Amino acid sequence: MTTTLITGGTVVNATGRGAADVLVDGEQIAAVLAPGSTLLGHDLAASVDRVIDATGKYVIPGGIDAHTHMEMPFGGTFASDTFETGTKAAAWGGTTTIVDFVVQYAGENPLEQYALWQDKAAGACAIDYGFHQILSDVQDSSLDAMDELVAEGVSSFKLFMAYKGVFLSDDGQIVKAMQKAASNGSMIMMHAENGSVIDLLVQQSLARGDTDPVFHGLTRPWQAEAEATHRAIMLANLTGAPLYVVHVSAKQAAHQIALARDEGQNVFGETCPQYLYLSLEEQLGAPGFDGAKWVCSTPLRSRAEHHQDHMWRALRTNDLQLVSTDHCPFCMTQKQLGVRDFSKIPNGIGSVEHRLDLLYQGVVTGEITLERWVEICSTTPARMFGMYGRKGVIAPGADADLVVYDPAGHTSIGLGKTHHMQMDYSAWEGFEVDGHVDTVLSRGSVVVDGGEFHGRAGHGRYVKRELSQYLI
Amino acid sequence: MTTTLITGGTVVNATGRGAADVLVDGEQIAAVLAPGSTLLGHDLAASVDRVIDATGKYVIPGGIDAHTHMEMPFGGTFASDTFETGTKAAAWGGTTTIVDFVVQYAGENPLEQYALWQDKAAGACAIDYGFHQILSDVQDSSLDAMDELVAEGVSSFKLFMAYKGVFLSDDGQIVKAMQKAASNGSMIMMHAENGSVIDLLVQQSLARGDTDPVFHGLTRPWQAEAEATHRAIMLANLTGAPLYVVHVSAKQAAHQIALARDEGQNVFGETCPQYLYLSLEEQLGAPGFDGAKWVCSTPLRSRAEHHQDHMWRALRTNDLQLVSTDHCPFCMTQKQLGVRDFSKIPNGIGSVEHRLDLLYQGVVTGEITLERWVEICSTTPARMFGMYGRKGVIAPGADADLVVYDPAGHTSIGLGKTHHMQMDYSAWEGFEVDGHVDTVLSRGSVVVDGGEFHGRAGHGRYVKRELSQYLI
Amino acid sequence: MTTTLITGGTVVNATGRGAADVLVDGEQIAAVLAPGSTLLGHDLAASVDRVIDATGKYVIPGGIDAHTHMEMPFGGTFASDTFETGTKAAAWGGTTTIVDFVVQYAGENPLEQYALWQDKAAGACAIDYGFHQILSDVQDSSLDAMDELVAEGVSSFKLFMAYKGVFLSDDGQIVKAMQKAASNGSMIMMHAENGSVIDLLVQQSLARGDTDPVFHGLTRPWQAEAEATHRAIMLANLTGAPLYVVHVSAKQAAHQIALARDEGQNVFGETCPQYLYLSLEEQLGAPGFDGAKWVCSTPLRSRAEHHQDHMWRALRTNDLQLVSTDHCPFCMTQKQLGVRDFSKIPNGIGSVEHRLDLLYQGVVTGEITLERWVEICSTTPARMFGMYGRKGVIAPGADADLVVYDPAGHTSIGLGKTHHMQMDYSAWEGFEVDGHVDTVLSRGSVVVDGGEFHGRAGHGRYVKRELSQYLI
Amino acid sequence: MTTTLITGGTVVNATGRGAADVLVDGEQIAAVLAPGSTLLGHDLAASVDRVIDATGKYVIPGGIDAHTHMEMPFGGTFASDTFETGTKAAAWGGTTTIVDFVVQYAGENPLEQYALWQDKAAGACAIDYGFHQILSDVQDSSLDAMDELVAEGVSSFKLFMAYKGVFLSDDGQIVKAMQKAASNGSMIMMHAENGSVIDLLVQQSLARGDTDPVFHGLTRPWQAEAEATHRAIMLANLTGAPLYVVHVSAKQAAHQIALARDEGQNVFGETCPQYLYLSLEEQLGAPGFDGAKWVCSTPLRSRAEHHQDHMWRALRTNDLQLVSTDHCPFCMTQKQLGVRDFSKIPNGIGSVEHRLDLLYQGVVTGEITLERWVEICSTTPARMFGMYGRKGVIAPGADADLVVYDPAGHTSIGLGKTHHMQMDYSAWEGFEVDGHVDTVLSRGSVVVDGGEFHGRAGHGRYVKRELSQYLI
Repeated sequence: MTTTLITGGTVVNATGRGAADVLVDGEQIAAVLAPGSTLLGHDLAASVDRVIDATGKYVIPGGIDAHTHMEMPFGGTFASDTFETGTKAAAWGGTTTIVDFVVQYAGENPLEQYALWQDKAAGACAIDYGFHQILSDVQDSSLDAMDELVAEGVSSFKLFMAYKGVFLSDDGQIVKAMQKAASNGSMIMMHAENGSVIDLLVQQSLARGDTDPVFHGLTRPWQAEAEATHRAIMLANLTGAPLYVVHVSAKQAAHQIALARDEGQNVFGETCPQYLYLSLEEQLGAPGFDGAKWVCSTPLRSRAEHHQDHMWRALRTNDLQLVSTDHCPFCMTQKQLGVRDFSKIPNGIGSVEHRLDLLYQGVVTGEITLERWVEICSTTPARMFGMYGRKGVIAPGADADLVVYDPAGHTSIGLGKTHHMQMDYSAWEGFEVDGHVDTVLSRGSVVVDGGEFHGRAGHGRYVKRELSQYLI
Repeated sequence: MTTTLITGGTVVNATGRGAADVLVDGEQIAAVLAPGSTLLGHDLAASVDRVIDATGKYVIPGGIDAHTHMEMPFGGTFASDTFETGTKAAAWGGTTTIVDFVVQYAGENPLEQYALWQDKAAGACAIDYGFHQILSDVQDSSLDAMDELVAEGVSSFKLFMAYKGVFLSDDGQIVKAMQKAASNGSMIMMHAENGSVIDLLVQQSLARGDTDPVFHGLTRPWQAEAEATHRAIMLANLTGAPLYVVHVSAKQAAHQIALARDEGQNVFGETCPQYLYLSLEEQLGAPGFDGAKWVCSTPLRSRAEHHQDHMWRALRTNDLQLVSTDHCPFCMTQKQLGVRDFSKIPNGIGSVEHRLDLLYQGVVTGEITLERWVEICSTTPARMFGMYGRKGVIAPGADADLVVYDPAGHTSIGLGKTHHMQMDYSAWEGFEVDGHVDTVLSRGSVVVDGGEFHGRAGHGRYVKRELSQYLI
Repeated sequence: MTTTLITGGTVVNATGRGAADVLVDGEQIAAVLAPGSTLLGHDLAASVDRVIDATGKYVIPGGIDAHTHMEMPFGGTFASDTFETGTKAAAWGGTTTIVDFVVQYAGENPLEQYALWQDKAAGACAIDYGFHQILSDVQDSSLDAMDELVAEGVSSFKLFMAYKGVFLSDDGQIVKAMQKAASNGSMIMMHAENGSVIDLLVQQSLARGDTDPVFHGLTRPWQAEAEATHRAIMLANLTGAPLYVVHVSAKQAAHQIALARDEGQNVFGETCPQYLYLSLEEQLGAPGFDGAKWVCSTPLRSRAEHHQDHMWRALRTNDLQLVSTDHCPFCMTQKQLGVRDFSKIPNGIGSVEHRLDLLYQGVVTGEITLERWVEICSTTPARMFGMYGRKGVIAPGADADLVVYDPAGHTSIGLGKTHHMQMDYSAWEGFEVDGHVDTVLSRGSVVVDGGEFHGRAGHGRYVKRELSQYLI
Repeated sequence: MTTTLITGGTVVNATGRGAADVLVDGEQIAAVLAPGSTLLGHDLAASVDRVIDATGKYVIPGGIDAHTHMEMPFGGTFASDTFETGTKAAAWGGTTTIVDFVVQYAGENPLEQYALWQDKAAGACAIDYGFHQILSDVQDSSLDAMDELVAEGVSSFKLFMAYKGVFLSDDGQIVKAMQKAASNGSMIMMHAENGSVIDLLVQQSLARGDTDPVFHGLTRPWQAEAEATHRAIMLANLTGAPLYVVHVSAKQAAHQIALARDEGQNVFGETCPQYLYLSLEEQLGAPGFDGAKWVCSTPLRSRAEHHQDHMWRALRTNDLQLVSTDHCPFCMTQKQLGVRDFSKIPNGIGSVEHRLDLLYQGVVTGEITLERWVEICSTTPARMFGMYGRKGVIAPGADADLVVYDPAGHTSIGLGKTHHMQMDYSAWEGFEVDGHVDTVLSRGSVVVDGGEFHGRAGHGRYVKRELSQYLI
């Protein structure tokens, strides 16, 4: 077992920061120590296999991206990152755990799909990974499966209020799943958009000849998101299930979450980097077909309506609790499917590599504090999804998932700048941000250091998750 | 320097819990370690002076009571606990730091008063202590003093919207102090009750012959608190000063704080154990003069109006951030001053010894989580008032202020059960709660253990506080 | 043409009251005059055919019940009042106009149904009547029909968010109808309950053996109403259509309407007498099958949750704008269909005769003002549904639909007390209220006077309605 | 007694419009009749002294300006309009009733001041007038005076939360007046600005050398208005007094009123034309000393913050109930007092002549409906201040205060265009609006017609007002 001592850095946890050394023994953190590398007279630096000098840098718990879709089958194609390429890219960006989604389409067996996804990921991942389970039709067997999956460490289930015939659950089905979640303690994750309304608007838009990518956004208006968010909250209120709303982008949806939380209901929300930085006008409305790069759902929102500012504020006020990427990359060669029909463009943006850097920029610009950065990128994802103790904190006994982050560094994002995701473009081309991921440890192993990748497919292990540790 | 190892316990921090040992070297925590007492082959247990077995128990950062009034001069008498008796009682209850208030009445010099209070506390305290400064009139010299006091580690200033001629600042004075706070980064604490209204209602009540203790509550209606709270929030909004509302008891006041926080304003609130458990009907309205025991301001609120439930909920939703005691004890012999005139009853309740136990009962009954208990009793007070890193967390480099708390224990509160506060009654007589403070360390020294007190007056040191670390 | 002078009374309109005489010439009001019966020297009393002495009484515009279901086909049976019996009963109670619903079930042709309903009503009604049109499936032909129906004086369309396979429109269909309404200026009326959730809860309740009438209420929880209300509001916001929510009973639903109105959206709501006076505990929860008398949808709500008080308050604050009855009577012989299965009980309560008296009781008890009584019972219904000028006001040129109401009178409601609705029970048995409908004129003809009925089937005429006159 | 028949017009009341003739007999309306000028065979047109042809025009109840300050003493000078010049100007603009303010400065006797103001107005007014009473210090004798004044027809009392040493009442005094109002049914009107804060900001601004008129606005920030508004609402809630907030200009203040109204509290608000049309940037911030023209309190607000739009919306949603002018004109020769110190500029804008025209422009632009125009300019002022029945409605028995308004007309506002107020400038110079006041009757007498003034000083009578008829 290798031992490592990270010295001289500032350890940042969600509640505060302090100078401390971190001792890693094998795969776990063995101790967090007062700086100086000696303990009761023992010279630790001399005793360990490796010393990493973090002077002038932050030492933070590895990022946890709670929403990714590696090699996801969708509309006849697959998300372009495999578990291998996607997790390697994640590691480059300081993310040491992902929680991906097992896909169960209507008619498929949830447990069989779960097994299939375990197979896909096995031996492929460079970092640790867990699973949420998508439930597309909620049959009696699905309800039984929910209990079995919780025992397997899949303690969260995603439902969709959109994508009829593909993912959509009707409200009765949602209630059934929520009743089960209320009884077994699992979390209901919700894609909250009113699919019935969107399907109509899409059909009307295409019939009018409005087929460009920007109409993807215009046919998914904020009302469709705010409505579905409130609906999900009411159904959760009725059943007592905890509710987690994915990829919140509309300020009105965030407001519904805030109202429910003020009442003490266990309702949570994530947003994504694209909803903090990008907009309908600037990106999705780019000339020609270029906007297809930013076709994702929920869509980019209007900057004129100040949704982006509101998302930052909601992160500050904890009306939204964390930031995931909804990493679901498709190459432009795939996006071409929708050249004359925006509704055929595969939905998704790839950001798994850039989340920590993009959010650190919020620290630089004063949107969030350093501690809040760690909280929304690592600690809260761990607590929200039952991994705290092993993940999300720098504490003895925790997995040694660690990032040495250089605030004096700089990161250029985008294709020309060599990102590592398997995509032929970058949604973030041209973003120049402060800060740099210097060194990344995954369960005690250095996987990124000095601009080189030292990890390997298969190093990552499945994380059997507990129930959420974030309920009030 | 003494070394201590606390082994076998569950270390609880604000974000989660985990099995860990804590190594204390002198006055600070030297390391938090994976359980087992060995580190890289060194047998730590064998190397330290003392081992404390915390098996089956929680190890938590020592409590921080951010609102106490030891030996406070008020209405011709003094709060009955001295810095010595009060801090000893605090230690008995697992509180290892208090932040007390320097009193400056109108016309007095703030800096002189500060020096006076430093003298009072010097050599007297059994645990560490800091100071907030009360400003009763805000003169130009007071504004200068605010800068000097921040440099002295007094980074928070309390103003009053009530007590005309004693403490009251008018709104212009409040704005002046807030402008200074906005510029030097300090925190404005506010006693938010509309004194002008209360003074009138008191006078009318006495004129009607309504002189019993319950009229103390009836002449301080929730409107007076909600109004002043909103007013303080608006003045803080105008100036950009951070605002901390003390002893929130009315649900409508808590609602005002929640609204401001949803907007992203740096507004905070504390409540106190009495507002969580006691009521106007049951305690303040006790027959005869008995209600005088519970005369404090803000007053106990009506249970029929559900204020108590709302305070718990606000703690869960983080609309209120922490719990202090507003410890300001007076003996019934002192309270006799108001036998025929409730307005002459010295205002105050003593709870400095019981806060941790009373709040832990909220964990038992499911009102709050174990982590939230630590957060509202220790971590957030430390962050809110600029002590984090030294206080409020179990982390290397922090002061070794530690409590071994036994969840299987039991605590009987009240005079007959031997509390240690210098009071001839207990506001909590007859409260029987789960949990027990077993062992208390203050800066590495065991001050309470095995039901015996090992501390001493003078052990406590002044804590020079930073600016708040909780701003958003 | 008959001329009538109503003298000596207090004319009450929505904005105020005043002593005035009302001169009726034929079917219309010819003049409203200063009291005294002379005008420029002419002795009007001597010139008219009939003088009605209203001394000491209120003269108010005839009631308008904007929500009735005469002889409605439902679940294999028909509402027990025909257009004849129902309108006669209405007249007895001071209501001189009803707006009933043309029923179009899925697959039926809206215009054919409209013609059918015109036939049913023709020659049958004792008072004037208009129609709203129910749209159960929103096809392209339905959208065309909406334009034609507006031209026919049917300027409001009711959709259902419940009753799958019978009335339900999905959200896309609702949006299509709303888009049409936004373009032609008509009003969308909404039965706002989440049918998908209710259907599941009903099925689960029956499966558990919970088959009594009270489970009708328990399987239609407030969340299902609040959810659907918010959803309808969002869809109306998206499309720009005016929205009118029928039979609001849950305080949370009323709150959603209030929020939208505060934002300036054209959203309106009605409540019904049963939601002001009756409750789930007292009536719907009556022993045995007796609760079936009060099975209606939305259901009676819990008094413990204070919905009834909130409905009164919403009427005061104009968060709800008017009171209709949702008159849909079924005899207990019909309700027997659901003896062992509450879901088979025909839904409906009969109150068309009692609305004015029941609401006047709110004046007596101080819930609403006298003017507000007239406003919510007559003026606002007229304005809301495009009849103002002809109906809803005492003004020259308006139809002489007038009620002489005796505030010193008394009304006993219920079967034993001879109501006139075609029902074998009364939902209001035993209600004793102040006030009494003395004389009723419909378009100038006295139809009720001195406790005798002087009207006739066929007197009532179809009211071709304009667009709503209440939009902001 | 003269008789007049107004024929052919569209009578507009608050709830709707309709073709009708209006017969005036002496000072009152004798009848409102179906159009055609015959009644039961009598040819009315032939019987009356005068026929006014209103074909194609609106006939509306005369405007009521519930907030004027004629010849008000302030800061050593007087408002430039006397009761004579001001009421004549009002008549020109279609306003037939004003409610002016009796001024009682601290130390003065309310009843003596009332008598003084009755003397000032006696024989001077061209239209009817009533009085509110200002109470600047609330002594026991003031409370007694409140009862006497209510008997005199002064049923509303204005208090100030600003202007220390001049008008200011402290919160205890406010509560005392409110307690009296709650008991005698009168209305408390409130100037809601936090004077203590404003005084400080003014002093700081002047000390910095910021002396231009725009600093009048910048030293009266929205927080000072929102704060005081909430405070007044809380004190009204405590005492049960009805509350009317004058000259609301900040959206945040309007929001406080909306919240209280949603809760069912009797809280009301007026805004003024200047807050609908003018702004801090454009008018108050005009170059040099020109901004002094628009120095009034509350101040003009920032257009960038959208206060103006919000005022219109609040009028639509009835969150604000009416529009007054706060007519308090000072000539620029008077305003010169503040050339080098904005705080010395007499506060006030003159608009009494233009209110109806300016608000009718809101009908033209679609901000409000025609009926709402009548409601906020006449009907609600009458109801709010106890004049309904005599004023605010076209109904028999009401005073024949009538305006024939030509929607096809045009009005040019401003000095060059010959306004009639006694001012050497116009705050509205250059405003060109649709609509025109053609003919104005005051208690049956034509006072304006065909561009000529036919009224006279002394025609106007004192209106002894009842209690508010608008409470819920």
